Amino acid sequence: MDYRIEKDTMGEIKVPADKIWGAQTQRSKENFQIGTEQMPIELIQAMAILKKSAAIANNKLGKLSHIKANAIVQAADEILNGQWDDQFPLVVWQTGSGTQSNMNVNEVIAHRANQILQNAGEADRIHPNDDVNKSQSSNDTFPTALHIAAVLKVEDYLLPRLRLLKATLDDKAEKFKDIIKVGRTHLQDATPLTLGQEISGWAAMLAKSEHMIIQNIEYMKELAIGGTAVGTGINAHPEFGERVAAEISEITDKHFTSAANKFHALTSHDEAVVAHGALKALAADLMKIANDVRWLASGPRSGIGEITIPENEPGSSIMPGKVNPTQSEAMTMVVTQVVGNDATIAFAASQGNFELNVFKPVIIYNFLQSTRLLADTMKSFNDHCAVGIEPNKEVLDHNLQNSLMLVTALNPYIGYENAAKIAKKAHKEGTTLKEAAIATGLLTEEQFDEYVDPATMIYPNVK
Amino acid sequence: MDYRIEKDTMGEIKVPADKIWGAQTQRSKENFQIGTEQMPIELIQAMAILKKSAAIANNKLGKLSHIKANAIVQAADEILNGQWDDQFPLVVWQTGSGTQSNMNVNEVIAHRANQILQNAGEADRIHPNDDVNKSQSSNDTFPTALHIAAVLKVEDYLLPRLRLLKATLDDKAEKFKDIIKVGRTHLQDATPLTLGQEISGWAAMLAKSEHMIIQNIEYMKELAIGGTAVGTGINAHPEFGERVAAEISEITDKHFTSAANKFHALTSHDEAVVAHGALKALAADLMKIANDVRWLASGPRSGIGEITIPENEPGSSIMPGKVNPTQSEAMTMVVTQVVGNDATIAFAASQGNFELNVFKPVIIYNFLQSTRLLADTMKSFNDHCAVGIEPNKEVLDHNLQNSLMLVTALNPYIGYENAAKIAKKAHKEGTTLKEAAIATGLLTEEQFDEYVDPATMIYPNVK
Amino acid sequence: MDYRIEKDTMGEIKVPADKIWGAQTQRSKENFQIGTEQMPIELIQAMAILKKSAAIANNKLGKLSHIKANAIVQAADEILNGQWDDQFPLVVWQTGSGTQSNMNVNEVIAHRANQILQNAGEADRIHPNDDVNKSQSSNDTFPTALHIAAVLKVEDYLLPRLRLLKATLDDKAEKFKDIIKVGRTHLQDATPLTLGQEISGWAAMLAKSEHMIIQNIEYMKELAIGGTAVGTGINAHPEFGERVAAEISEITDKHFTSAANKFHALTSHDEAVVAHGALKALAADLMKIANDVRWLASGPRSGIGEITIPENEPGSSIMPGKVNPTQSEAMTMVVTQVVGNDATIAFAASQGNFELNVFKPVIIYNFLQSTRLLADTMKSFNDHCAVGIEPNKEVLDHNLQNSLMLVTALNPYIGYENAAKIAKKAHKEGTTLKEAAIATGLLTEEQFDEYVDPATMIYPNVK
Amino acid sequence: MDYRIEKDTMGEIKVPADKIWGAQTQRSKENFQIGTEQMPIELIQAMAILKKSAAIANNKLGKLSHIKANAIVQAADEILNGQWDDQFPLVVWQTGSGTQSNMNVNEVIAHRANQILQNAGEADRIHPNDDVNKSQSSNDTFPTALHIAAVLKVEDYLLPRLRLLKATLDDKAEKFKDIIKVGRTHLQDATPLTLGQEISGWAAMLAKSEHMIIQNIEYMKELAIGGTAVGTGINAHPEFGERVAAEISEITDKHFTSAANKFHALTSHDEAVVAHGALKALAADLMKIANDVRWLASGPRSGIGEITIPENEPGSSIMPGKVNPTQSEAMTMVVTQVVGNDATIAFAASQGNFELNVFKPVIIYNFLQSTRLLADTMKSFNDHCAVGIEPNKEVLDHNLQNSLMLVTALNPYIGYENAAKIAKKAHKEGTTLKEAAIATGLLTEEQFDEYVDPATMIYPNVK
Repeated sequence: MDYRIEKDTMGEIKVPADKIWGAQTQRSKENFQIGTEQMPIELIQAMAILKKSAAIANNKLGKLSHIKANAIVQAADEILNGQWDDQFPLVVWQTGSGTQSNMNVNEVIAHRANQILQNAGEADRIHPNDDVNKSQSSNDTFPTALHIAAVLKVEDYLLPRLRLLKATLDDKAEKFKDIIKVGRTHLQDATPLTLGQEISGWAAMLAKSEHMIIQNIEYMKELAIGGTAVGTGINAHPEFGERVAAEISEITDKHFTSAANKFHALTSHDEAVVAHGALKALAADLMKIANDVRWLASGPRSGIGEITIPENEPGSSIMPGKVNPTQSEAMTMVVTQVVGNDATIAFAASQGNFELNVFKPVIIYNFLQSTRLLADTMKSFNDHCAVGIEPNKEVLDHNLQNSLMLVTALNPYIGYENAAKIAKKAHKEGTTLKEAAIATGLLTEEQFDEYVDPATMIYPNVK
Repeated sequence: MDYRIEKDTMGEIKVPADKIWGAQTQRSKENFQIGTEQMPIELIQAMAILKKSAAIANNKLGKLSHIKANAIVQAADEILNGQWDDQFPLVVWQTGSGTQSNMNVNEVIAHRANQILQNAGEADRIHPNDDVNKSQSSNDTFPTALHIAAVLKVEDYLLPRLRLLKATLDDKAEKFKDIIKVGRTHLQDATPLTLGQEISGWAAMLAKSEHMIIQNIEYMKELAIGGTAVGTGINAHPEFGERVAAEISEITDKHFTSAANKFHALTSHDEAVVAHGALKALAADLMKIANDVRWLASGPRSGIGEITIPENEPGSSIMPGKVNPTQSEAMTMVVTQVVGNDATIAFAASQGNFELNVFKPVIIYNFLQSTRLLADTMKSFNDHCAVGIEPNKEVLDHNLQNSLMLVTALNPYIGYENAAKIAKKAHKEGTTLKEAAIATGLLTEEQFDEYVDPATMIYPNVK
Repeated sequence: MDYRIEKDTMGEIKVPADKIWGAQTQRSKENFQIGTEQMPIELIQAMAILKKSAAIANNKLGKLSHIKANAIVQAADEILNGQWDDQFPLVVWQTGSGTQSNMNVNEVIAHRANQILQNAGEADRIHPNDDVNKSQSSNDTFPTALHIAAVLKVEDYLLPRLRLLKATLDDKAEKFKDIIKVGRTHLQDATPLTLGQEISGWAAMLAKSEHMIIQNIEYMKELAIGGTAVGTGINAHPEFGERVAAEISEITDKHFTSAANKFHALTSHDEAVVAHGALKALAADLMKIANDVRWLASGPRSGIGEITIPENEPGSSIMPGKVNPTQSEAMTMVVTQVVGNDATIAFAASQGNFELNVFKPVIIYNFLQSTRLLADTMKSFNDHCAVGIEPNKEVLDHNLQNSLMLVTALNPYIGYENAAKIAKKAHKEGTTLKEAAIATGLLTEEQFDEYVDPATMIYPNVK
Repeated sequence: MDYRIEKDTMGEIKVPADKIWGAQTQRSKENFQIGTEQMPIELIQAMAILKKSAAIANNKLGKLSHIKANAIVQAADEILNGQWDDQFPLVVWQTGSGTQSNMNVNEVIAHRANQILQNAGEADRIHPNDDVNKSQSSNDTFPTALHIAAVLKVEDYLLPRLRLLKATLDDKAEKFKDIIKVGRTHLQDATPLTLGQEISGWAAMLAKSEHMIIQNIEYMKELAIGGTAVGTGINAHPEFGERVAAEISEITDKHFTSAANKFHALTSHDEAVVAHGALKALAADLMKIANDVRWLASGPRSGIGEITIPENEPGSSIMPGKVNPTQSEAMTMVVTQVVGNDATIAFAASQGNFELNVFKPVIIYNFLQSTRLLADTMKSFNDHCAVGIEPNKEVLDHNLQNSLMLVTALNPYIGYENAAKIAKKAHKEGTTLKEAAIATGLLTEEQFDEYVDPATMIYPNVK
């Protein structure tokens, strides 16, 4: 293979001729042959946004020439356009500050900027550390990129997909708002509600999670940039952090700020823990929704069978004609993954020492995986399952009429204990509630018909 | 032992004569001999607040007589005063709706109210279900009490203790704001900062956590009450939920509301997951703070030794004179507990089915344990450790002067690569930075003294 | 309150006159007012076994007089008899080495032994450190007691209760071995099996877990004793560790040994992590079993309803006559607790530094809680639910006959694709399989009856 | 793009012309656009081993012709040789039974086998379900492949890398066995030990973990194969399971067996939970080892600095000459990942219902990721860090001589309390132990020199 020689403060090293990364990227590639998980492209893109913003800010502060700043900006834009995706080969399992990925971006931008400036003189040669990384340290750039990547992925990727599924559920809730059905608590028959109400509970989960995610991702809009090596801001201009945050806000059209306390910003990932906690709460809700859907659709003959869902593929390699709730299954597996990721993130976030937490790559890897998986599974579930949910009216109606828990409506008239007698009698004797009620002599048939009407049991019915 | 006979819809059962609970409490006691963890008293108290509020609301709505309502209110107040603490013997590991603890409270209040009304007629006999539980179901009362208990414990117990420790750290940060010391990243010597800045990072963690806890506990102020059995509000008045929330707000002086969607309120515990996520973020921060304190205080002779902490007790049963950072140890153990509790809560919250989640007792048990432990360990750490933190100036100064990372200040003058040469030379030859710098010929002694001044390296120093 | 003055190397301190603990216990009580979780009594008892064994070993090695050793043994035996349960007031959240609980036991034994020896001379005064703790350090005694307590609780408390439930399930599996029913995969109807086979799967889970627990608890029979302060064994006789292990084996009738590498024994809790992993696997199995039971018993009219379970208590405070699968609910809540405890234990076990892991109390607290809860919930589930499981034959039979997945038996005769056509046709048209099969012309009625016989589909049926 | 038409029981679908997968693979690809995590290649390879073994067994049992069996075997071998790696595009987040990946393998093998048999007649056309999947169901093949993949990865990939690191540590322990150093407990100076002893504790952790992993992976050698659709073995020959297990054992040179209870094998993943628990215990140990290494190497001037480790790359983008313990950092990040994966696996394993657990893909994905990461990080840590660990003798010696905890050796001579007085006096006055000891008058200089000799404090020294 063809190589060229690159060097850093450790000395020389061979880099493949067709790659534009530098010595430190190459060292990391060789020294960390661990796993297959590359640094997420979202983090690289966030880093490019940051490098572009830093170049602009440095230029405005008079620390970087126009010619250099422009070249860096152009190189960063090319990364953002996806032109250099194959130049970021490093894995998650590297130094815990993400220094090597910071340098990877610095080196690629410097190399590419120097190509752009190929006709410029030596004075305009761009150095990965002195120019691209100017006024910065991995210790403030990596957590800054971590926050940017998380915010963009959650707000621009996850939330739209959450809203898509919520809209579908809202629509179903409205459409089925008059279909009365048996309720179930403890898996046991309970008082009635409408199918629309049941689904409105799912929609409310998504609405609540949406709200909580929106509020909690907000914390991640505070950026470490400006803290440099240990949080003091050494080698940076006093305005650098705020100016970079302003540029990032401009580029992303979101309101990022420079963190009030940079010592916190380098060592604590409490905002990531909290924001991922909101993702986990969404996951817990999705587990409930996906389970309800598959249980309600269970059967087709020996299950609950109150709804039908789309048949998307053969369900079994041995049982012909079998159809399974596979979208629910993918979703519930995602939930278990998100729960595990949450454990990883909190553990990692707790392990900072002195001026730095060196578990940053594993935090953002898990954060982005959760975000991506939740978003994708909501969209997939929406498109291939939720939109096709239909009531199985015959079953719904049969179950409702059969339910012993309609007896609850009698409490205000004959008291809990008498009502219990009727329910127990009907259960034991296998009769209808009405038959049992009349047999007890506690009510007349007319009274029973007046009091026990499912249609009046689906809202607060005591006046 | 002396017994009396109680009965419920299942039949008769013996209850110890000196207890005022009823048949269902007794059944649960006998049927669930699991573990030693009783339903937390905070939950019982929250239930008493709710029962009192419900009696008032029912009375105002014309559903409960003055005489009954007053007796219920009095009995509930007695519970709140701690008079009946020994009447709530049930364990956490019971029915997952908490029905048995709801009935325990209903039975104790009914029994006590009937004692109060001993001279009243049969019409004024108070029934646990028909009166104390009027317009309610375990399915809406238990999650309502769960939210009340969590909110009260967090706001009135945890936050004051968090603020106590934060104030101490703010104070130390201010007091030590001029003590310059070596920074450390990756456990390796880094550029300097002040001891005050270092501690300000800890204080900022507590401030951030405080803020995030305050915002996230807010979600738990929405109450399930009014949903009754399955969320529809069957057997309740349409205004019942809101009126009860208003009474609870009055009693607790906090702003509780009736949840917008009761189907969500009975089946989802996303708010508890998110709120506990904020507690977990605090825990992650505390792990970092406690670790920093014990590492900085490590030694006394062969550790970092930059601070001293109070000596509270003999540290070893074999090593005479040994003193250990025991408050840090208690705190870090609490952190591991909170992380485990978080896993339990999310798992439990994900397991709802149809109209109910039946993992409520385990959720509140863990939520309250985390809250109590975090609060207590912050207070204990504050009183027995943080207030006594003092700098060990001799060590701090020695380490600072010795640090090779002061070289970072040379980047803007001679570039990263030349600066690296100086640091490596000094490290290799065991000399001071200045000696190495001058030996390289890259700077004069005067330049070195001008550029490398720790006092100018503790803030953004590029103009 | 009445006090006496005790002292240790820190100075004097007041101890309640009615308590026999000493200065260090009192200091811990005052310095660690954190939570309500006392050091588990099982750990205290294990410590008493250890102190007794150490006294015997020290005596045999000529390091402790007969008179002192006998007094220590008697005091330890009194603790084992439960006479001094109220003398161990310390909480879990203390020093992470458990030093304070080690000293609590040393102090109580010394005080009590001195009472026993009240007429002896000054030379026979027993000192908590020099005599009761002779040849020991908290650093080896606490992990030793941790292992002893875990082994005893698992082998003598949990395993018998596991076996009780397993025997019940084996019995049910045998009893229902001829009741053919519809199988379910993905919650969808599948090929048949017998109810006995289904339950045999549950029994096999318990058998497998039993086996894995037995093998994995074995690792905890290696004891740290003999390592003293840092693992070197300083201030102990070379044979001390092995001799104490032999005495403990004698007392407990189990085979404990002295750990081969004491540096490992003080710093690693990998054995506890693995052993608790086996408890977690049991928990995962119990979740599945408890869920199957409650789903199979769901209804009574609109659920699966294939089995009935005992009715133990009224299920609802509002819905009269409702009966819920409460034992399943208690069990599944325990499962979520054990999963959280597992996270705590692994986190704690990972945090050792140099010669000691200082998260020992939180590890044993969680380990014992898991063990106790799993044991208790299995017994409770057994007594109040499993023993009363009965088939609902009418439902079972109806579901079986109705199942479309009996079509699987046709694969070997007409191929998967033709079989699928028949199943789909029957499903679409709402007919029986047989009707659909004959209508396709792929089989005659006789062939169908021959091939599709549930009784031949419940074992490997291809010859 | 070029397509061909494939069909299954759902109808026709377009498949890219250059791919040899079939209709069901294509459906899954389109229906599950979730995340980027493909089904691990190790699982596909294990499935190929299984399909090969099944073809041989079916042939021997007279159920599959020689010509078909041979073609299937050849196609499977080609997969095992890596020739068709790009034909398995499905993601982890699909149906929870892994049916789609089972069908992916069935389809690719059938297609390739038909290519091989292109000149054969219609009777020899190989069908993905009727031939490649003969006597099988996804429900038994996927868990079988899951077990095979886990066993192979752990035994053939992880254990050799664990042994590599263990050998290095054993070597260092031996090499440094005479270097006496200060011990540390609670991060505080403690009695001495040798550097070799300290490292022997790390080696013992790996030895213990190795042993526990070996024993616990054994459970995964029981295979579900033979259970087919629901565990009964419908459509399989009674000997099929055992015969396939024998063929797999032959191919892999490991001892696999057919599971005793197939209902367990399809629904429980307790073996995976336990085996991964052993991986987690290893992870906890690695966290401790990696932390010790980086703390011991901390500095270079203001840390512990007792050892040096290789300098592999520039450590900082801003601090010139900085070198960081990056291999420790990669390793500790892996640990946090494994801990999260463990939570995912246990959660997933608990969620089985009736005859199937449908969380299989997420279980094997996490299991294999943990195995791969642990293996890789141990090798990387070994090659780039552990082999280069060297003692910093000057520091070691200085710390040892300075230590106050040598006073422990005086306990047997003057008692714990007197020894404490000496240590406290030296600490307070900043003197040496000897100076303080003599000043107290409790010992002569000669006695002190005789009793306090670090060289006699590194083993059980009481005779």
